[in-house]
Order: sequence, then structure tokens, then C-alpha cells
Amino acid sequence: TDLLLLPGDGIGPEVTAQVRRVAEALTPDLKLEERLFGGASYDAFGTPLADETLAAAKAARAVLMGAVGGPKWAGVPRDKRPEAGLLNLRAGMEVFANLRPALCFGPLADASSLKRELVEGLDFMIVRELTGGIYFGEPRFIEELPGGGKRAVDTQVYTTAEIERVARVAFELARGRRNKVASAEKSNVMDSGLLWREVVTDLHKREYADVELTHILADNAAMQIVKAPKQFDVLLTDNLFGDILSDAAAQLTGSLGMLPSAALGVAGKPGLYEPIHGSAPDIAGQGVANPLAAILSFEMALRWSLDRAAEADRLYAAVERALEKGARTRDLGGALTTVQMGDAVLAEL
Amino acid sequence: TDLLLLPGDGIGPEVTAQVRRVAEALTPDLKLEERLFGGASYDAFGTPLADETLAAAKAARAVLMGAVGGPKWAGVPRDKRPEAGLLNLRAGMEVFANLRPALCFGPLADASSLKRELVEGLDFMIVRELTGGIYFGEPRFIEELPGGGKRAVDTQVYTTAEIERVARVAFELARGRRNKVASAEKSNVMDSGLLWREVVTDLHKREYADVELTHILADNAAMQIVKAPKQFDVLLTDNLFGDILSDAAAQLTGSLGMLPSAALGVAGKPGLYEPIHGSAPDIAGQGVANPLAAILSFEMALRWSLDRAAEADRLYAAVERALEKGARTRDLGGALTTVQMGDAVLAEL
Ligand SMILES: CC(C)[C@H](C(=O)O)[C@@H](O)C(=O)O
Ligand SMILES: CC(C)[C@H](C(=O)O)[C@@H](O)C(=O)O
Repeated sequence: TDLLLLPGDGIGPEVTAQVRRVAEALTPDLKLEERLFGGASYDAFGTPLADETLAAAKAARAVLMGAVGGPKWAGVPRDKRPEAGLLNLRAGMEVFANLRPALCFGPLADASSLKRELVEGLDFMIVRELTGGIYFGEPRFIEELPGGGKRAVDTQVYTTAEIERVARVAFELARGRRNKVASAEKSNVMDSGLLWREVVTDLHKREYADVELTHILADNAAMQIVKAPKQFDVLLTDNLFGDILSDAAAQLTGSLGMLPSAALGVAGKPGLYEPIHGSAPDIAGQGVANPLAAILSFEMALRWSLDRAAEADRLYAAVERALEKGARTRDLGGALTTVQMGDAVLAEL
Repeated sequence: TDLLLLPGDGIGPEVTAQVRRVAEALTPDLKLEERLFGGASYDAFGTPLADETLAAAKAARAVLMGAVGGPKWAGVPRDKRPEAGLLNLRAGMEVFANLRPALCFGPLADASSLKRELVEGLDFMIVRELTGGIYFGEPRFIEELPGGGKRAVDTQVYTTAEIERVARVAFELARGRRNKVASAEKSNVMDSGLLWREVVTDLHKREYADVELTHILADNAAMQIVKAPKQFDVLLTDNLFGDILSDAAAQLTGSLGMLPSAALGVAGKPGLYEPIHGSAPDIAGQGVANPLAAILSFEMALRWSLDRAAEADRLYAAVERALEKGARTRDLGGALTTVQMGDAVLAEL
């Protein structure tokens, strides 16, 4: 299989269906496969990620995931929840570097909650460590206390090797961009933050001295993203801080429904591509979700895993033209349905 | 002592000096005391928080802290860093509930990076758990790995009792406001998040069913704060998420240099008051920092620990009048020095 589609939950199947249409038109020779994932997989098989699905993901050249989770599964035990399926997929595929662009599409600058001049032309990249840290560390448990009540524990763990490999991705990316990396942690109060800073500093000195490196505390990074996001080029951070900071940054651009992401592992292994938005249970099933984030995730897959840069360029240009001509789903202030936005892109291809 | 002043580092001493002037004019009968703290204490005594200082803090009726930290102490071992002094002060005083307002001062709405209509009239309160979670949990260490490289561990720990007491503060506060609490965690991927949600839900059902409670994932909270901050009344969260979210929210208001905070423990024990801004090494020593956040922290101390509501009202009104008359330090787009802003407030008292 070239591309494994995992539509998942909520608006996931709706937006993934548009990816399928685009793929069939643009790259009809690509072999596609589709499997249940997340809550949908739990409902069918009692697990959010079936063994065969993980095996299929590892055997594919690229995986495109729609979205997972929703209130329907809030009562399911944590290790069977849709989100656990996604964590296990990321870990199983060893995609440790999550590239999340904070990009403001020109025609959409006014959709941002920030003042126009702060976001117009905004283009930075968050590199989030994706398979380590507190979402994975052991021990993790909830125990009963002898005197009554409970105690819950999660563990943040990072090794030199885990930090170094994701930092390397950030430095390499920066070289192809504006040559700046800001590394965010809480080295003032966390031991993992101290090690993070040390490893990034060492790697920089050893191999990337040509890249401009700054260190920033994660709480200050949250402030700076809100205050003056254009100061960033590549923002490197851990799994937990990356989760929060990338969502704030994506929302800021006013283009949340437009933003794709890529999770990459070692060269030659399949990448995992996902829209940044979630499963959006509030609008699921209504056919109004914006499919562009999923379509642009496919564009990233073409470029980075499927060796189809020419088609990726064509697809990107088609999305731009559709937007220029005024194609807008509801999140962008328009009235197009999911399918109509798919049509608009197909018409430009 | 009524009020212990801990000026600390960076701009801390500059802004605290203005608090002293205001206190001497407004409440000359209050007994003030002042001690070194943070990096300044480390330089003098080899520890960021001397035992006598902690004892003095616990014996005072209220403590006002300026700011801690700076590049000067970046190389100091973690347990001797200025920030460690602050964590130990919070823990030693058992001030588990940190109240951080996200408040947009009317005359300053245009200073926000958000569009005016999104922040004008903004007034919500973040209640951050302050003495538990990952900044305190054990084990925490960095170890050498046998094959080379290192491994760093931090531990997030929360108990039912810790969550319940801070949630209680949030619910009580909400009753005196717009009666809404949003509780933020990552219960979809963290065990501490699961326990957090469970304890907050139980307490709500048992004692605060009249308050409107919603649960929100912390990453989504970061988005919502940026997108539509006015939806919040009281936002309850843990130490780590509270650190990040409250900084983003404070910056959004455009009034960062104006925002005070209070850290409270059990009734009758002294509260710890701090401006939200940090030590701002870039402008320290220049006499241009905005002292209003520190002055308003004193206002909170008057109200909540020192039983001087009438004087607190007078002080708040004086600050408002000074702003209305156009008093502005550099962060607010003006040219007043720290001392001149102090003068402006004193003139209105
Ligand atoms: C769904 C969830 C497990 C996931 C995460 O927290 O990593 C999501 O929030 C994300 O950011 O991709
Ligand atoms: C200085 C530091 C220890 C502190 C924290 O992280 O709690 C600060 O960032 C804050 O938010 O008060």
C-alpha cells in the first residue's frame, strides 16, 4: 500500500473522504487502503488500534489519519480510548518528530483573532517531540490511599538520544528556512528541561553552529507566541509543551481548519500525516467541516513520503487558487460544505 | 510583621520600592519588613530562600514578592536557583491556590495583540494549583545511562485532597462572579488528568451543583483563550498547565505589566502576592519597569490578608484615575519611569 487512510472519528471520515477524491484524481496509480481507527475501531473490535492496523501502517509508505476521540468514548478505560490508539500508532510507527506549521494563509489573515499586522505572512514551524515525555513515561497509575482518597502519577522521561534526534530534525529544517531555532522547556524547574537544554546546546555546538539557537522558557514561549509570533522560525519543544503551544499557535493563525501536520521517524520509514484540528464532535456528521487541512496533509505525504513533489506542487497551487477564488467553508466565514470544498479543489486540479 | 517584602531579582527591587512608598502613604501603621530573596539571597547567603526568611514569611500576615531569576544564575545547581527559592517559599507557606486574573484594563484595550472587541471588558480568573504537580513531584533526577547519554525524570503527582482544596477555591470564587468554572486537564492521555476530572466532578456534585461546570482539555483551553477569551469566568487547572495558560492569557490582555496575583492557603494563614510579570532582565536597573502590577498585588494583599478593604478600594481607584489621566510606562506605550508612575498613583491617593 502507498497510502493507508485512517479516517477515525468525528469529522475525520468526512474530511478523509475528500482526500480520497483528490488522490483518485491526482495520483490514480497510488494504492490506497482504509481501516477503522480510534473510537470507530473500538466500537468494532474493542480496541482503538488493532494489531493488523498497526502492521498495515508500518507496511505502508505513508499514513493519513483524520481525527480521533469524542464524548462517546469518555467513559472507556484510558488504555482503550481513541486517544490511546493514536499514541500507540505514533509510538508503533516511531514517528518522533511532529512538524506543525503555524502558517497564516494570505486570504485568511482577517480570520485571526490577532491583529492583522501580527499574523499576515506568519510562517513558523513547531517541531514537537511526539513519542516520549509525559504521555508515554512509566510509572503511570492511580492508586487508593490508605487514609482514603487517591493518588495519581504520570512520569515525564527523556533521554539524550530522544532529545537529540528530534533536535536534529529542527536544525535541519531551520537550514532550509530562516536558519533560526528556539528551544522551549522549563529548565528552571524541571530536570527534563535541564537535560533538554544541555542536549540541544551540545548538538548545536557540535553540528549546527551555523544555525541561530535561542533557549526560551515554555511559559514565556506561550507569551511570545501571542505577542509577536513572527519572531519564530522553528520552535523546538517536547511532547507536552508542544501539544499546548502548537494548538495556541495554530488557532492564532486564523487558519486552524487549514493546517496539516507531519510526524516523521527515521528516513525511509512511513510518515504519519494528520490535520491539526481534532474530531470536532460539535459539527461531526453535518458535512460542513473544512477538508483542506486533511487535503494539505495529503500534500505533505506526497512530498515527504511518496516522492511525488510535482503532484504536491500541483495540489498546493490548486488549494491556493480555490481560496483566491473565494472558496470558504463555514470556519472561514463561508457557506461551502465539505464536499463543495472538495469540488472546488478538484476543479482547480 | 504585617507585610514582608521580598524584592528579589531583576526589576523586582524597582517595583517593590514603589509598593513601599504607596504603603507608607496609604497605611503608615502597617509594619513592613524586607529581606533578600531569590538570586539576591543566593549571592549573599548561598541559598535563594534562607530559613529565617521562610520563618519570617510564615510569621507575617502577608508576603509580597517582586520577581526572581535571571541569566546571572543560569549555571547555579537547580536546587539553589532563584526559582527553587520561589517553589520552596510557595510550598513552605502552603499557598496552594494561585489566583491569576486575565483582566483587560479599559484604557489599555488597544495594547493587546488581539482585536479590540475580543479583549475589551475581558475579566476572567485562572486558578492554578501551586504547590503540587510536576514542579514538586518525586522522583526527579538526571542519571547517566550505562550505554552513554543520560535520562531525566520528573514526576507529576496529584492526590484527591490536593485537587479538592484548590477546586473548592475555584467554585467559591465563581459564586462571587459569573458562576462558571471550566476545569482544564489532559484526562484523555494522563492519569493525573483523569483523577483531576473525577475529583472536580465529585466535589461539584456534592457541594457546588449551583455553579456551572465544564471540563476542557488543556490544549483546547489554549486555543479557546486565544480565540474567544471572554467565554471564561474561572479557569481551574494544575500547576504546569496553569503556568503556561495563565501567561498566554495575561499577555493577551495587553496589560501584562498591570496584572497582580495572589497565592492563598488555608484561611488565616498569610497569602503570597506577586506581580505576574517576571524579573525582566532586559530592562532591569533602568528604572523603566511598570510598578502597577506590584502595586495592585499590594492592593490584593490589603483586601485578602490584611483586612483593609477600604484602603484597597482607595488604592484601586487611584490606579484607575492615574491611568485615565494618561499615566503610562513604556510597556503601555508611554514614557513614565517607574518612580514617576509611583508618583502618579501617590498623587491620586
Ligand atoms: C488526541 C491527543 C492524544 C493528541 C495529543 O495530545 O497528542 C492531540 O491533542 C494532538 O495534539 O495531536
Ligand atoms: C519562576 C517560576 C518558578 C514560576 C513558575 O513556573 O511557577 C513562574 O514562571 C510563575 O509562573 O510564577
